[in-house]
Amino acid sequence: MISFDEAFDKVIQHTQNWGVETVDLLESTDRVLAEPVLADRDFPPFDRSTRDGIAIDFTAFEKGRSTFQIESVLSAGMPQKELSSPELCCEIMTGAIVPKNADTVIMYEEATLENGNAIVKSIPKKGQNIHKRGSDARTGAILLRPDRSVSAAEIGVLATVGKTRVSVKKLPKVCVISTGNELVDVSETPLPHQIRKSNALSLYAALSKDNITPELLHLTDDKKTIEENIVRVLQQNDVILLSGGVSKGKFDFIPEVMKSLHVEKVFHRVAQRPGKPFWFGVQKQHNTQVFSFPGNPVSTFTNYHVYFVPWLYQCLGLRYPKREVILDQPIRNDLPLTRFVQVKTHFEKGKLCANPITDGGSGDLASLSKSDGFVCLRPREQEYEKGELVSFYET
Amino acid sequence: MISFDEAFDKVIQHTQNWGVETVDLLESTDRVLAEPVLADRDFPPFDRSTRDGIAIDFTAFEKGRSTFQIESVLSAGMPQKELSSPELCCEIMTGAIVPKNADTVIMYEEATLENGNAIVKSIPKKGQNIHKRGSDARTGAILLRPDRSVSAAEIGVLATVGKTRVSVKKLPKVCVISTGNELVDVSETPLPHQIRKSNALSLYAALSKDNITPELLHLTDDKKTIEENIVRVLQQNDVILLSGGVSKGKFDFIPEVMKSLHVEKVFHRVAQRPGKPFWFGVQKQHNTQVFSFPGNPVSTFTNYHVYFVPWLYQCLGLRYPKREVILDQPIRNDLPLTRFVQVKTHFEKGKLCANPITDGGSGDLASLSKSDGFVCLRPREQEYEKGELVSFYET
Repeated sequence: MISFDEAFDKVIQHTQNWGVETVDLLESTDRVLAEPVLADRDFPPFDRSTRDGIAIDFTAFEKGRSTFQIESVLSAGMPQKELSSPELCCEIMTGAIVPKNADTVIMYEEATLENGNAIVKSIPKKGQNIHKRGSDARTGAILLRPDRSVSAAEIGVLATVGKTRVSVKKLPKVCVISTGNELVDVSETPLPHQIRKSNALSLYAALSKDNITPELLHLTDDKKTIEENIVRVLQQNDVILLSGGVSKGKFDFIPEVMKSLHVEKVFHRVAQRPGKPFWFGVQKQHNTQVFSFPGNPVSTFTNYHVYFVPWLYQCLGLRYPKREVILDQPIRNDLPLTRFVQVKTHFEKGKLCANPITDGGSGDLASLSKSDGFVCLRPREQEYEKGELVSFYET
Repeated sequence: MISFDEAFDKVIQHTQNWGVETVDLLESTDRVLAEPVLADRDFPPFDRSTRDGIAIDFTAFEKGRSTFQIESVLSAGMPQKELSSPELCCEIMTGAIVPKNADTVIMYEEATLENGNAIVKSIPKKGQNIHKRGSDARTGAILLRPDRSVSAAEIGVLATVGKTRVSVKKLPKVCVISTGNELVDVSETPLPHQIRKSNALSLYAALSKDNITPELLHLTDDKKTIEENIVRVLQQNDVILLSGGVSKGKFDFIPEVMKSLHVEKVFHRVAQRPGKPFWFGVQKQHNTQVFSFPGNPVSTFTNYHVYFVPWLYQCLGLRYPKREVILDQPIRNDLPLTRFVQVKTHFEKGKLCANPITDGGSGDLASLSKSDGFVCLRPREQEYEKGELVSFYET
């Protein structure tokens, strides 16, 4: 049995790269950018009025002029015009190009318009209300770097530079397999000794957060069935997530089957609670990573978030957001293993605080819906105190 | 012009309820639950072994017995068996039903199995390693309350109680309309006076976070075109999000068009930066809410997150996560309006800290991709100090 830190390091050492693909702009939402995005022109592309008002040549004002005859009305979407004389002005709308020979925009609120003239009521500053060409970015400047998640703001940038197709990191093909003879379909009414499947569906929902739609498979605890199915699944997927069948029970065939299918065991059993019987291995021929979680709901859920999610981030080139929370209550961990304790967090004056959730052990599924993450407590004689900082995994 | 707080209150007073619909279990991910979810049986439904090992009658051990003949092997998914005599034991696997007449499970690691017998090596505690029937929840207990978002943990609970179909809050039908003659499609090469559309696509991506797929529409600054299209859109949608056309410019037809279409103005113009010309109204006949944002990217984005998202949460019965962050740098706001300042946050010893992003004003689209939210600074003579708590909107 290895420690949590060793196990985590071994998982992270098996980082994969599934390459790059090109998708339509709106499909790139929540994907990981795989190319730098450059400014295809200056931004803004022209001296742009930021107000509705009038555009003047400041020098004329400086020389004492405050009444300007209006020679034209300029709106966004019109080609650039010219101020033909410093005695004149143009009405100009937000987003319009400032005309040649003008350099200052005075908003309507600070001018009086009558009989085709604009009378300036307050003292403008030269250059005011103009968003200068190239002031946000010059042609060729990097607007977005790769290895970041694309969200609404990035979609705006991609649209602006004309990226109808976006290069993003490919996601792994994932198969989620549940095992266990006690499990029946959600639609069935279980007999007294049966329970409905939940782990695989829960993993399906968790993966959908990262845009992955897995194949779902259920296998009974029959060695031959498991073997036959896993052969195919190993060939067709980059990742297999299993739940169940890795404990010390007589029908826990997974480690044995993996061995017979030449899936190299990286480790089995970690000094942690929950999730001690976690098995991790690699099938080198197809380069398929196998995360085999114990079947208890809380064990599967914890291992998924503690190992798989940070590993997936690493594979996609994203930084996993390491977080710490402040304990609101003392917790003990004098066991010789790392404990992951379910907590409910809340913000208090800008501080992220965590309260442990009382649960019924690793089989207590409903407890997961009361928590929003786990704190990680390494073995320690001394109590973890109220107010102490501990590392946190959001779920 | 009204204050930000007044404007926000007015928006929130227009909370809508779009009713309830039933969807397939896996489609309920990220939706808002509209029914309480009850335990359809006890959880666990039987006394369940939490270890692989042997099940005994503790009384026999108490009376001095430490060697037990193995009479059967029980695995998960088998109907309940019986321990036929206190001198015997059953091998039992994790998840299996504890047999009648047995009350204690000893894990394999603490027993020696040889010649059909199990010899107990350590002193067990009565009842150990058994997850008692009903200890997590009794039949009829509420496992999930309505008005919460369904994520992976809730999917597990719903599956366990056999919910193949889930009652969730209906989402609004949304139409996103961009206006402006200067705008061309993302696929086009803009002329020097044109720019590509980005706001509508950015809103599309933002809405997808909340599972809403809007209709997208672009209208040129022509009053008749705007009117004709908005008539239809008002009939077919619960919400319209507009960007552009609400400023004081000569081609800002939206307020006028809304009036002619009997969309009642709730307010126009808010003492805030960015996003001052925000227009909000309701078409009472179809009960369509109209959020009309100014066309600058930062203005639209800010107003969307500051007004629309909290309003949507309220409509769906969710609590909007009000947050505060700790300023890492002092910021001034001596203007007579509420400022929303783009910030980048980071956690430092459990505290959420925020640094303002330098941007080029409300037209600087790329700046949004550098920030992860806005802080809200109401007008105040005194500087907002480093270390001060201010309210925060995550984007």
